[in-house]
Amino acid sequence: MEGSDYYKRSSYEVEGAESKEMGKAVSMSAYDLVMRVLAFVLTLSAAIVIAADKQTKVIPIQLSDSLPPLYVPLTAKWNQMSAILYFLVTNAIACTYGALSLVVALVNRGKSKGLWTLMTVLDAIMVALLFSGNGAAAAVGVLGYKGNSHVNWKKVCNVFDKFCGQMAVSIGVSLIGSLAFLLLVVIPVVRLHRRA
Amino acid sequence: MEGSDYYKRSSYEVEGAESKEMGKAVSMSAYDLVMRVLAFVLTLSAAIVIAADKQTKVIPIQLSDSLPPLYVPLTAKWNQMSAILYFLVTNAIACTYGALSLVVALVNRGKSKGLWTLMTVLDAIMVALLFSGNGAAAAVGVLGYKGNSHVNWKKVCNVFDKFCGQMAVSIGVSLIGSLAFLLLVVIPVVRLHRRA
Repeated sequence: MEGSDYYKRSSYEVEGAESKEMGKAVSMSAYDLVMRVLAFVLTLSAAIVIAADKQTKVIPIQLSDSLPPLYVPLTAKWNQMSAILYFLVTNAIACTYGALSLVVALVNRGKSKGLWTLMTVLDAIMVALLFSGNGAAAAVGVLGYKGNSHVNWKKVCNVFDKFCGQMAVSIGVSLIGSLAFLLLVVIPVVRLHRRA
Repeated sequence: MEGSDYYKRSSYEVEGAESKEMGKAVSMSAYDLVMRVLAFVLTLSAAIVIAADKQTKVIPIQLSDSLPPLYVPLTAKWNQMSAILYFLVTNAIACTYGALSLVVALVNRGKSKGLWTLMTVLDAIMVALLFSGNGAAAAVGVLGYKGNSHVNWKKVCNVFDKFCGQMAVSIGVSLIGSLAFLLLVVIPVVRLHRRA
């Protein structure tokens, strides 16, 4: 296969320490691939869970004391709040990048140093992007569960319980995916420093 | 001085390329220090701006149609919303770490590789922490400016205009500080890869 041929010309090779460096490259590559698969699967799952999150409830609305309440069906969905939309977009970007970087990592296998550096930089940008999305979604989630008396925003999760529960799961899964991206940034730094 | 003695034994030295590597270590250190000062000053400023953010307004509240409105003084402050509290805490942690890491970087100056690695890992954690705080504050900021009709959360920034403006400035400053931390993580990776 062409891949193994490329592999022999890996930039990780150092003259006189070929086999040792080769072993390091293999373990680094395997770790990298596992983390990338994890990051991809988790952010994809988070995006699917929040995109599929929808709950319709029939709410009684009292228009006047003399009249019986009016029953109105209300639906909660991700596109109704910009923070949840942003959370979905960040996870969609991260899982798309995760898939692409996985393909690049498989094809590249440490061949191009420049490509690997670019990927670590993009990994770091994904950490920033994902954590901002998690923060935004968690902030409106807390408001949904608890409300805020100072600004008179009433809690809504007592009504849309299934919607809020599914959103909480999505945030949790996205958070683990974000940690996978964080590890993708951190562990190579630790390894490179050790070898520098 | 002991420091310069240690410096000669710096782990960045490579036999036969001493002066070149030394130059790189110096430039890396200078860049690192400037970025750390920036990250510290910006996150400290963001924390101070949000902590000092307070606005009191006298709001007319109509209790009944037949009675004149009741004028109630209402105060907006950072401790009234968990997302803003979290934003303040993340910036406080980041600026404290920024100050400590600046001292360590000044004392260390590339002497201990392990310490430098630890600092890069902590820098990456600060990126995650700060961006989650920025995301949370921005999410409630958008709700404050626009409100949300689906959950009947009314906008409040038309009343607490000065509070919201100051909060927006704080988020902007914190975002630039977060980018400084992101650069602290990314640029050494780029440099190390180039030298690996």
